[in-house]
This record gives sequence, C-alpha cells and structure tokens, in this order.
Amino acid sequence: MSKPVIHYFPIRGRAEVLRLAIVAGGDDFDTVDVNYAEQKGDREKYPFGQCPRLVDGDIDLVQSNTIARYLARKYNLQGKTEKEICAVDMIMEGVESLRVKYVNLVYNDQLADAAKEAYWKTYFDKETTTGRNGECGESGGGGAHIQYLTNFLVKNGGQYCVGDSLTIADLCLWEIVDLHMRIFGDQIQETYPELVSFQSFISELPGIKEYLAGPKRLSEPNANKLG
Amino acid sequence: MSKPVIHYFPIRGRAEVLRLAIVAGGDDFDTVDVNYAEQKGDREKYPFGQCPRLVDGDIDLVQSNTIARYLARKYNLQGKTEKEICAVDMIMEGVESLRVKYVNLVYNDQLADAAKEAYWKTYFDKETTTGRNGECGESGGGGAHIQYLTNFLVKNGGQYCVGDSLTIADLCLWEIVDLHMRIFGDQIQETYPELVSFQSFISELPGIKEYLAGPKRLSEPNANKLG
Repeated sequence: MSKPVIHYFPIRGRAEVLRLAIVAGGDDFDTVDVNYAEQKGDREKYPFGQCPRLVDGDIDLVQSNTIARYLARKYNLQGKTEKEICAVDMIMEGVESLRVKYVNLVYNDQLADAAKEAYWKTYFDKETTTGRNGECGESGGGGAHIQYLTNFLVKNGGQYCVGDSLTIADLCLWEIVDLHMRIFGDQIQETYPELVSFQSFISELPGIKEYLAGPKRLSEPNANKLG
Repeated sequence: MSKPVIHYFPIRGRAEVLRLAIVAGGDDFDTVDVNYAEQKGDREKYPFGQCPRLVDGDIDLVQSNTIARYLARKYNLQGKTEKEICAVDMIMEGVESLRVKYVNLVYNDQLADAAKEAYWKTYFDKETTTGRNGECGESGGGGAHIQYLTNFLVKNGGQYCVGDSLTIADLCLWEIVDLHMRIFGDQIQETYPELVSFQSFISELPGIKEYLAGPKRLSEPNANKLG
C-alpha cells in the first residue's frame, strides 16, 4: 500500500494536523507541492479551489477537517464510542473556531501589537469566557476561547481530551496551542500550565516525537513568514 | 425512547438542518427555548457558550455541525461507503463556508443592497469561481461559492449530492439554498435551474414534506427578522 500523499504548500498551515494524524497512526506520508494552476482550475482535484488535498488509494479529498476526520477513522483516532466520537468532534469544531481567529491575526492583522493584545483578551483571557455569543455579529468570541478547550482536557484528567487514548481532538488542540505558544508563550506558561503539560505529553508520544524532531516537520507555520 | 430535544432560539438558524435530519429520519423532536443565562454560564451544558444543543438519551451535544454528523450517523444519512462519507463531509464543509458568509450578510451587513450585490458577485456569480483562495486573507471567496456545491449535485445526476439516497449533505445544501432563495430568488431561478429542481425534489421527500407544511417549521430564518 502506497503512502498517503498530501498536496499543499511547504508550510505547516492546515496540513499540520493531518501530518500529525498520519505519524501518530504509525504511518508515513509523501508530500507534493500544490500545483497552483491546478488548484484554481481543476474542479475534480480541487472542488473548492483550495488545499490541502489528500490522495490515499482511491480516496481523493479536500477540506482539511474532512481529511482529518477521514484519517481519524483510518487510524482509530476518532473515539471509541458514539459519545467519545461526539466529544472529539465538538472539540475539533471548537479548535476550528479558534483557528479562524488565529488565521485572521496572522494574515490580516499581521501580528501587530495592538491586535495581539486584543486577541489575547478575547480568546485567552479567563475573564472573557462568559461574553455574548459572537456568531450572530454581536461582540465576543463566537465560541472561540482556549478556556473552553482547556475545560475538556482538565475534566478528562489532563492527558487526553477524550477517553483514555489519543484522538484527533488531541492533535487539533496540540497543534493550535503550539501555534499560539510561538506568539504568547510566556502568557500561556503563566495562565494555562495544564496546556503546557499537555503539550509535553503529546510531543513525546510514539510517532509524534520522531516526526517533530525529523526533517518532515516544516519550519514555517504560515505562508507569510509570520507566526 | 424519548424524542431528541433541541435547545435553541425560536428561529430556523443553525438548528434547521438538525430538524430536517430528524424528520427525514422518520423521527420527531421536542423543542426547548434556550435558557440564555444557562447558555452563557453553564459550561457542562454549553461548553462553548453557544447553541443549538441537542439532548438525545445520554448524548448531550453542542456545535451544530457535530450534531448534524451525529444525527447523520443515527439516521443513516452519512453515506454508505468510506468514499461517500468523505464526499458528504466535504460538501458539509463547503456549505459551512458559505453559511459564514450568509450570516455576515444578514447580521453585519443587514442585507443592504450594495452588500447583496457584492455577495452575489463573490459567492454566486459563475465568473468568480476561479479567483484566489481567500482563506489566507487574500481577496476571493475562500472556498465559498454555490457553483462548487452545485458541481457535486450535477456530477451525481442532480437528485442527490452523493450516492443514490438522501444524506446530510443534501439537507445542508437544501437549507442553505432555501435561505438564499428568499434573498436572490429570481437570480437563482435564472442562473442555477439545477438547484431549483433539487429544492423541489428534496421538499417532496417523506418526512420533509410534512415537516415543511407543519407547525414545527418556524417562520423566522434569523434572529434579527431579516432574510
């Protein structure tokens, strides 16, 4: 069986959780730099004009969270019971809410100091978790807050987000926290020590440890060299 | 077995796909107006401070797309093979991309004429499907375009988006098109006749037909009386 192939840019970006899922599953992947003309023009390969794209045997997929759920099923990272599957999926959605804010901070706000300060206040400050729902255009975080995600982890004992083994939810949380540690490292160390322990624990798991120290772990998190 | 209970506002909103999934599955649901104080303060029931929330036996869930996938598994609306499951999931993600834009048009832009014109051009005009990927803060639709979704439907024969029976992808597409028909009805009739046929076909399916004509189909799509 050939390896899954990830078509993407040479950055971590929206492919990093996918790479982590594959190596955590004990597998390996090949990488192809996305062909931009194909990405924009070929609706068979890129139905939404976007990447990453995963090709794995007769599976040919886009939409990063769809790919993540596919890999979770393939490598038994989706949760063991219906209840666990649901909890894993909820956490993935919560991470996605935060990722949208992170992408905006990096690409639109270019990590400007004032933007970083407002970002921390809205999505990391423990005082701001009870604000109004931002989804309907009101002020507030719109369900994006690291405390919400941390709650799942703490309630489950602090090692894994759900159940007693690794799931895709852990990889999503690990990766989004990893990105934020690069920007808000000191503040996270001080405010969310449980996340710091979680990061260390996950980093040492088989497959992940070797990947993080190896040549396939790309150095750039984002396409604009920030973050 | 008691009915699934949806905790939400008395609007269609992010609960409508869930209601459609339940009735398409031949089941029925109970509705509870969400308790706003609980929603904002109770992290057990509302882990992200958001609704809808679904309670179904020992399943207690938030995140609308997580709930949709749960209901899809429960009522066999998730696709029959791994390939179908993946395709269904991709389409759901594509609908979500468009829904975010729709919510912005209704709540932030208040359906202003200029905003509607720009919206059509970006997300419905057939000329704009090959623009740059908007995900990284660049200009363009960021994977949100009705043509992308229509392609899946047409490629599969025009009745269902995936396979030869109803899936949650059809319900997601039907609902987002239904919302847009209220705003862009004439333009959609003219530009996307295949969607108009699809809407009619899905509306007549058992469970859905009765629901749409019945008292549980709420009249307001959004909380601000627009749309």
